Amino acid sequence: MSNSVTLDSTLVSEQIVKQLITAWGAQNKSLETLINKYDEAAYLNEIAPGRNRAIYIFGHLVAVNDNILPLLGAGDKLYPELFDLFITNPDKAVSDIPSMAELKKYWDTINTKLNNHINSLSVSDWMGRHTKVSAEDFAKEPHRNKLSILITRTSHLAYHVGQLALLGKKELAN
Amino acid sequence: MSNSVTLDSTLVSEQIVKQLITAWGAQNKSLETLINKYDEAAYLNEIAPGRNRAIYIFGHLVAVNDNILPLLGAGDKLYPELFDLFITNPDKAVSDIPSMAELKKYWDTINTKLNNHINSLSVSDWMGRHTKVSAEDFAKEPHRNKLSILITRTSHLAYHVGQLALLGKKELAN
Repeated sequence: MSNSVTLDSTLVSEQIVKQLITAWGAQNKSLETLINKYDEAAYLNEIAPGRNRAIYIFGHLVAVNDNILPLLGAGDKLYPELFDLFITNPDKAVSDIPSMAELKKYWDTINTKLNNHINSLSVSDWMGRHTKVSAEDFAKEPHRNKLSILITRTSHLAYHVGQLALLGKKELAN
Repeated sequence: MSNSVTLDSTLVSEQIVKQLITAWGAQNKSLETLINKYDEAAYLNEIAPGRNRAIYIFGHLVAVNDNILPLLGAGDKLYPELFDLFITNPDKAVSDIPSMAELKKYWDTINTKLNNHINSLSVSDWMGRHTKVSAEDFAKEPHRNKLSILITRTSHLAYHVGQLALLGKKELAN
């Protein structure tokens, strides 16, 4: 018996998109568990000696999710000031950054809007170009679609979740 | 003008699978860059104080990729002994582990076979159940397909790539 299945192609695309949204959600959930694991002060520690502070990595992920809104056509960024603080600048370049409590509020607000939008898109929407690619370039490079944003941002999130997972009781003792 | 496109559904599925294989390949490439960045001795360092050694994380990823072979129906694991060393056991539980040079050879051998197989699968193959789920369970849970292995292992790889990226010149000085 073959393990292959014959399915309607439309259902196949819908099934795959659903799985990609689940994978995105799983990484967001892992991140949320990690940022709610310790007291806020703990996140001022570096995840490893001389490396980014946990709060910076979280701020970076908030800024990246905010930036997904325009890319997927969900409107403007909600907190455009985060881009400069957490994407353009490296950690410690700017001393006055939002607190963990503020960042968590931003995260919730952004993700509520973002995930509502993500769940509203059809397969055809996902296959459409994201807003940073021109119609001309997209005609030549059909992989630069909205779904590519979801796929690459899921990996990007997992990359930093792996780093935040290193923050532990050991660091808290410092 | 709408950003949506109307495409043949079969082409859509093929396009998405292609993008997922690209995302998988990108994480594998990032990992390869990181494991070839320093002398072998550097990978005996922990990625952060009290955390896993870089060589253990790499061995873990070799073992995980080896384990994908049977899951995708590409045959048995090539180095079954790695499962116990790098998945069942935590770092430092077993003192006698393969060297970086040996692990790199295993990685290349596994990935050549794995990626040939990945590139040979049709959309219909990807939508078929992976080998650890029964036909009965799969009928109720169609997301437990081969593609879910590719998606989740890409995130898993990105998670550990994020950690290996922390290994730097600072650690080399120890």
